Amino acid sequence: MRDPQALLTSLRTLLGERHVVTQATDLEPLTRDWRGRYQGTALCAVYPADTEQVAATVLLVREHGGKIVPQGGNTGMCGGATPFSEEAVVLRLDRLNRVRQVSGLDNTMTVEAGCILADLQARAQEAGRLFPLSLGAEGSCQIGGNIATNAGGTAVLRYGPMRDMVLGLEVVLPDGSVMNDLKRLRKDNSGYAVRHLFIGAEGTLGIITAAVLKLFPQPQASATAMAGASHLDQALELLAAVRSRFGDRVGAYEVMSHSQMQLVLDHIPGCTLPFAEPHPWYVLIEAEDSFAAMDLASILEDCLADALERGLVSDAVIPKSEAQREALWRLRHSVSEANKVAGISVSYDTVVPLDRLGDFAAETERGVRDAFPQARRLFVGHVGDGNLHAVIHFDHDAFPSRDAFETAARRINEIVDSATLACDGSISAEHGIGLSNRKRLANSIDPARYRLMTQIKALLDPDHMMNPGKVLVFEDPQ
Amino acid sequence: MRDPQALLTSLRTLLGERHVVTQATDLEPLTRDWRGRYQGTALCAVYPADTEQVAATVLLVREHGGKIVPQGGNTGMCGGATPFSEEAVVLRLDRLNRVRQVSGLDNTMTVEAGCILADLQARAQEAGRLFPLSLGAEGSCQIGGNIATNAGGTAVLRYGPMRDMVLGLEVVLPDGSVMNDLKRLRKDNSGYAVRHLFIGAEGTLGIITAAVLKLFPQPQASATAMAGASHLDQALELLAAVRSRFGDRVGAYEVMSHSQMQLVLDHIPGCTLPFAEPHPWYVLIEAEDSFAAMDLASILEDCLADALERGLVSDAVIPKSEAQREALWRLRHSVSEANKVAGISVSYDTVVPLDRLGDFAAETERGVRDAFPQARRLFVGHVGDGNLHAVIHFDHDAFPSRDAFETAARRINEIVDSATLACDGSISAEHGIGLSNRKRLANSIDPARYRLMTQIKALLDPDHMMNPGKVLVFEDPQ
Repeated sequence: MRDPQALLTSLRTLLGERHVVTQATDLEPLTRDWRGRYQGTALCAVYPADTEQVAATVLLVREHGGKIVPQGGNTGMCGGATPFSEEAVVLRLDRLNRVRQVSGLDNTMTVEAGCILADLQARAQEAGRLFPLSLGAEGSCQIGGNIATNAGGTAVLRYGPMRDMVLGLEVVLPDGSVMNDLKRLRKDNSGYAVRHLFIGAEGTLGIITAAVLKLFPQPQASATAMAGASHLDQALELLAAVRSRFGDRVGAYEVMSHSQMQLVLDHIPGCTLPFAEPHPWYVLIEAEDSFAAMDLASILEDCLADALERGLVSDAVIPKSEAQREALWRLRHSVSEANKVAGISVSYDTVVPLDRLGDFAAETERGVRDAFPQARRLFVGHVGDGNLHAVIHFDHDAFPSRDAFETAARRINEIVDSATLACDGSISAEHGIGLSNRKRLANSIDPARYRLMTQIKALLDPDHMMNPGKVLVFEDPQ
Repeated sequence: MRDPQALLTSLRTLLGERHVVTQATDLEPLTRDWRGRYQGTALCAVYPADTEQVAATVLLVREHGGKIVPQGGNTGMCGGATPFSEEAVVLRLDRLNRVRQVSGLDNTMTVEAGCILADLQARAQEAGRLFPLSLGAEGSCQIGGNIATNAGGTAVLRYGPMRDMVLGLEVVLPDGSVMNDLKRLRKDNSGYAVRHLFIGAEGTLGIITAAVLKLFPQPQASATAMAGASHLDQALELLAAVRSRFGDRVGAYEVMSHSQMQLVLDHIPGCTLPFAEPHPWYVLIEAEDSFAAMDLASILEDCLADALERGLVSDAVIPKSEAQREALWRLRHSVSEANKVAGISVSYDTVVPLDRLGDFAAETERGVRDAFPQARRLFVGHVGDGNLHAVIHFDHDAFPSRDAFETAARRINEIVDSATLACDGSISAEHGIGLSNRKRLANSIDPARYRLMTQIKALLDPDHMMNPGKVLVFEDPQ
């Protein structure tokens, strides 16, 4: 960049003094990723007021030869929103936070990128509808980031990932033009579906400024249960049985290994095992329905009794109160905290076809045990989606240095990724690529598809101005 | 092309004599579109045996400077599969007709492009699953064509269009390379979702050779009703009422005007009105559930009784037998035949947001009545999706010549498209663009999106070798 000060001056003129941030104390949290793994750097952060200002900002930065890193709530898991250049302008969407329209008849909501996910859930509820995307960071993540990363979460099994909830997009392209594809239409065959390029592109192809989202009927009845099983394969057979009873009413099907459960029980106060004795695997099942009169609990009880008889499960509990239900979910939601308190870990976001899940877990277990006998092999995940997070966990003092840990992590990457590919899976189910997984992506996907991705990036953003160094490996891969 | 005979010789060597067709009698049906609106021309038609032969064919045609028109069942509505050049090789997928895998646990089916849709429905049923795509041509259309055109049909309201049922694709690109993205995964954030570019691109960006499709639980209970209403707005209020009762169990919500019903009653033997007297609008409702025990008929009856009381509908019938149910659906399915027998027509595939549907119908009605007082204004469509087909219908002898009719059709295009755009709609809900709608597309969508489409076409197919002249207007627009 020729003259950073000139760019700052122009940005201040365009957006107003207070919407261009350069103070180190203000910038610092925006240049560090949520997990605290990366500390980057940036020229400034800007807070445009609307789509027109976003477009004008892109033109200014382009003119001055700078870079742009779009950032939502900065809650991503892979460093995708972290800037790494003195030429980088962090473009925050906070001020684009209006709900432009809610249509009950169409079951749609037209929203701006900076809206907080939890606020949109509430807004849908006010309209008597459900916006189903739900994830840990929902109180601070922004919908633009959810779309840019094709977020997953706990409702994917029934409603699909973020991509499936987007009917239309407004995007500021790297050349500063605005693509308006905000149609509230359930069917639209007017040419190529270019909006899907931007969903999941993590801001490398343009800046999402608004979207039309689908709304759904609110669930009126639900039922929850936890079961213990001897083998992962039995948990998968149980999934088939639950599905044949409930059809598409299965809202969650979460699985965790006892090794994972033990860390939760040991480190999270107030967590207790809901069974008389431990089981190698636990399954958390939830079914839901938009008919209030539907007695899902009886059906679930019946289904589990049948599974006990067939030997698919060793024990099962159905909560008798909302407090009991919450206690079951607390076991699941305490996983990240327990693992952090108990030690250090390398964790994976693998997804494989369900009929390969047993192979994947066994292969990972075997490979890691051979290479790192001291490691705990924990498994937890949204197994209904085929998404099993392997967590390779060590005591805090297991490695003499950060470097030694990173070397081990690279070796574990090889073991897990090799098991993933052998099972026709993907290294990223829901967390995306960002900075962390660029090389793993390049080494794991179909070469023709990867080539097409690099060509599309070069077409839309030939100067690598948009979120440089993310998703694809073009230069300085780390 | 330098030497067509040399290309034919090479193709025969590659594929075998009998898989390269040049006889006029054999070629003729492949060079005419299903509606009989276009009679094109081609050098030959080829029938490769597998993906490798498709890729080798693309390389050969490229080497000789020819063109390729991929063709499935040739049942499209817009001339998208018709070849128009002496250099064109019609590439048929008929021999790529294997079901590679069915996974009950994953609820997926991996199929080749040439599989007939009805065969895939049957194959899913054998596995105790539903493949929901359903449309008039299902006995002869091929799944590759369904994907390439993002087919719609009668199950979109509950299951979405074809795009929503595709988890993975295998595509032969215009440079002859094969993109293998056939993962059986419900969640996959491994980079840009490039497969969505090919879904709905009508063969202009590459040749789809295989796909991973989603399967669903089979419906075990259903209920059907037909109601009469005074105004389209009431039919839309009824839709909201039906949805608030049934949630996502509404499988079909079809609407037709009395003007349309009258043509069916007048021209299709055995069709009778199921009401004592006519109503300006008719609604056909179907609800379905994967629970056999669900008494949907009672809920529907209750819902309609309430709607009668509120004055939303003037009358309603619930069939008492499968024969009665079929008679109701026959009225809906006889529309195309009745309109063809009764005269000539220009018909539209408009979709608008539901809260603009009344405006669209009124504006179209008014504009056409003023310009062509002698025209019948018929309306019929998948209104649950916002997809209302306007059919502007004339007596057989209404125009002195084909040219006079085409001139009138262009004027009607302007009226309908202007109403569509004023209501934030799209000119193509489900039929696509093909040859027929290229100019209407160029004139109706967001310019930045259109520019991006042309750039993507130029990136993937710089020589315009793949299905030239379709979807986009590059040269010789008609």
